[in-house]
Amino acid sequence: MTNIVLCGGSGTRLWPISRTLMPKQFVRLFGDKSLFELTVERNSQICDKSLIVSNTEQYFLAVDQLENNPKLANTVSQSEKFPRKSNMQNPTFLLEPIGRNTAPAIALACMSLPKDEIVLVTPSDHLIKDELEYKKVLNTAKELAQAGNLVTFGITPTYAEIGYGYIEADGYDVMAFHEKPDLQTAQKYVEATNYYWNSGMFCFQAGVFLEELQIHSPKIYKASKTAWDNNIALNSTYKIEHSCMEAIPDDSVDCAVMERSDKVKVVPSNISWSDVGSFDALYDELPKDRYNNTANKNLVSIDSKNNLIYGDHRCIATVDIEDLIVVDSGDALLISKKGSSQKVKQIVNEVKKTTQLHNIHLTGYRPWGSYTVLEDADGYKIKRIEVKPGKRLSLQRHKHRNEHWIVVAGTATVTVGEDTFELEQNQSTYIKAGDIHRLLNKTKENLVIIEAQVGSYTGEDDIERLEDDYARG
Amino acid sequence: MTNIVLCGGSGTRLWPISRTLMPKQFVRLFGDKSLFELTVERNSQICDKSLIVSNTEQYFLAVDQLENNPKLANTVSQSEKFPRKSNMQNPTFLLEPIGRNTAPAIALACMSLPKDEIVLVTPSDHLIKDELEYKKVLNTAKELAQAGNLVTFGITPTYAEIGYGYIEADGYDVMAFHEKPDLQTAQKYVEATNYYWNSGMFCFQAGVFLEELQIHSPKIYKASKTAWDNNIALNSTYKIEHSCMEAIPDDSVDCAVMERSDKVKVVPSNISWSDVGSFDALYDELPKDRYNNTANKNLVSIDSKNNLIYGDHRCIATVDIEDLIVVDSGDALLISKKGSSQKVKQIVNEVKKTTQLHNIHLTGYRPWGSYTVLEDADGYKIKRIEVKPGKRLSLQRHKHRNEHWIVVAGTATVTVGEDTFELEQNQSTYIKAGDIHRLLNKTKENLVIIEAQVGSYTGEDDIERLEDDYARG
Repeated sequence: MTNIVLCGGSGTRLWPISRTLMPKQFVRLFGDKSLFELTVERNSQICDKSLIVSNTEQYFLAVDQLENNPKLANTVSQSEKFPRKSNMQNPTFLLEPIGRNTAPAIALACMSLPKDEIVLVTPSDHLIKDELEYKKVLNTAKELAQAGNLVTFGITPTYAEIGYGYIEADGYDVMAFHEKPDLQTAQKYVEATNYYWNSGMFCFQAGVFLEELQIHSPKIYKASKTAWDNNIALNSTYKIEHSCMEAIPDDSVDCAVMERSDKVKVVPSNISWSDVGSFDALYDELPKDRYNNTANKNLVSIDSKNNLIYGDHRCIATVDIEDLIVVDSGDALLISKKGSSQKVKQIVNEVKKTTQLHNIHLTGYRPWGSYTVLEDADGYKIKRIEVKPGKRLSLQRHKHRNEHWIVVAGTATVTVGEDTFELEQNQSTYIKAGDIHRLLNKTKENLVIIEAQVGSYTGEDDIERLEDDYARG
Repeated sequence: MTNIVLCGGSGTRLWPISRTLMPKQFVRLFGDKSLFELTVERNSQICDKSLIVSNTEQYFLAVDQLENNPKLANTVSQSEKFPRKSNMQNPTFLLEPIGRNTAPAIALACMSLPKDEIVLVTPSDHLIKDELEYKKVLNTAKELAQAGNLVTFGITPTYAEIGYGYIEADGYDVMAFHEKPDLQTAQKYVEATNYYWNSGMFCFQAGVFLEELQIHSPKIYKASKTAWDNNIALNSTYKIEHSCMEAIPDDSVDCAVMERSDKVKVVPSNISWSDVGSFDALYDELPKDRYNNTANKNLVSIDSKNNLIYGDHRCIATVDIEDLIVVDSGDALLISKKGSSQKVKQIVNEVKKTTQLHNIHLTGYRPWGSYTVLEDADGYKIKRIEVKPGKRLSLQRHKHRNEHWIVVAGTATVTVGEDTFELEQNQSTYIKAGDIHRLLNKTKENLVIIEAQVGSYTGEDDIERLEDDYARG
């Protein structure tokens, strides 16, 4: 069985934690694990292959997390640090230059597989806590898929949620799909006991799905086929071309196939599931202290209870507050009443009018490591740059800024113009505007440098890449 | 008339804005003015001399604010930037190495003045908005003081405050001083209309005060006299010796004199007064937007009202919150229910157990300018250092850290070992651990450098000062 992991989703409802360039599924919400990692870990116990469908921009985030996860490292590379543990094969990546919703993503993934391959399609940003029950449910689904069905997973609703679609069932048979209901209708659904939340997880044979797609949404099928036939394969990565992807109609798998096909079945799933789709949902899943505040080492709390306090950088002090959501990040702070966290979307809409706060964090992740803006002032900008072992930045130059580099940890190999030299901890160098330069970490330890940019303009777009390991423009 | 300005007070109730090394009176709470500046400005219209009683550590903060205030600049130095405007003389400073409460502070100040000098004693951290009424009240007080009385100012209470002492009056005569009452008693006081809040402001002849102190608290008088006789005078600064100061009993002027003397009078004062003693009080004084949130350019607010939102660095987003106090600073965030802000003291008590957050901000003010910690990590620390025109840091060296300096604005004159050289914007230098060095700004513009400290220990106490313009150890 192959696990198709869908990594779309921008997760703006968890702003300011989750932003376009670091969406919910890759944020380490629960201790040191992201939902993406938890998803791949969970399914690697059941499936023997992983096929990860990701945006081109987020590809390296996925690879990075797999490489650094001791349980999954061997699925990406035979690292010395982490000896092979599971029998899972290396995952394959399907890279989309732009998102076209779930129907094209699943179609493209299925086209890369044999027709009789059983696939388990899962979002990458859901939490499933009852793994024993999950395995049972998957076995049932697999049997139904082998018999030629398109299987959906219906989550037993625990309350009258108005944010999800519902599946009306009779045994494994689907009677109807229902759109997001109003509260009264949702309450009826919960009481009826044969209505389930549509979880966005599916199980079927790749070929059966493609046949049904061809019947019910032939345009999507055809455009996806063209896109697949023109993919650029490199190692275990399939990259879809931009113009091909653009030509595929945007549609969800529910609309394109599930609500139309008569081969659809539903497996009722009581698996302690959450889509962690809001801060209210996140609060429910995080560990709490004895006053029902989420446990937080930086919290100093007086007479406060039932609060989500998220943020590990600064001291957060609370006095006499209750039922609040407090989310602290370096450049943005959110304070919301509990129960109102759906309105965070409105905040994001406001914020994006005048800032980039919906898009980027102070820390930006790059294929070679990360940078963190320490100060962005008129005439200069200060960054901490971390380069992972064996990685290097592009060969580049800037028009408007000079750069001063100080190595504060590790050893850098620096190219400036014709010269290449090493800089140890506590050594520094200077790169004049216009100078071609490159930063490489050829050691086995992390490299950390402080970069002081000085110039009239220090925007990220003042960069000309002459050579790049990651084929960026 | 001489205005004795008392600058004690650590203002922990306004943490995290106010901290020991940057207490409430020096914080620019209202636009670009501190309460200290507002106090000196206000009284400079009535008094012809200022005598500022300050802790040694905060002396330069006071001087700095006076120098940079266009209305007051001439009171400190004949700056080219600010031509002389008022007739007020340069203020005198009385510097206390340690605090001993108000009785010794006022005693020492009075000892520096002629016996028949009328003095107006004011705290430096109160707000008085009705300046016309204030002037009238002061005229009455001055007349009573000239007649040999010790005059207190009784603020007409506007609600049943339990945090202040009350003065019971019969006309200008004081019937009794009352300790902080319980709520029921406070309500009676307010209804009675002849009870006033004790404002901590006084008016009397210096000699009369000292006579009454000698009668009612002879130990304080005697120890203060010894301390005064041993003061170290330099220019218009009187510095009290540490051992002498330590020998003076700690007491408030109310306990030591006012509650005991029969020469005390009270002038009822309806002057729109606030001690800005809590965030609840601060909320009342700040300008609001149409939802009664305090105006804040970084606020993105959805369905939120009646909140104090304080912090101008990062974006603060609120959803459905009401009657909250949110105070954001670089290294600490406070969220309190309105009406509970007295409990901030408890937070400070917690915080000081394990951190220095009660004491210092990320930005530390120094006689020569300021520094701001941009990052404090294992093995290195990054600071922005700003040096005011004409100022220089001490000649110093460090045992454990190397320093990299990059000039990002202005021009630095740097001494390292035997060499002295200039560094322009975008130039850098390196100071090895053990090297004697100094940083000077001899230009008329601010100098800004980025300092990267690299070493196993980067604590502030790894500094040996060999020469210092500010006589620091």
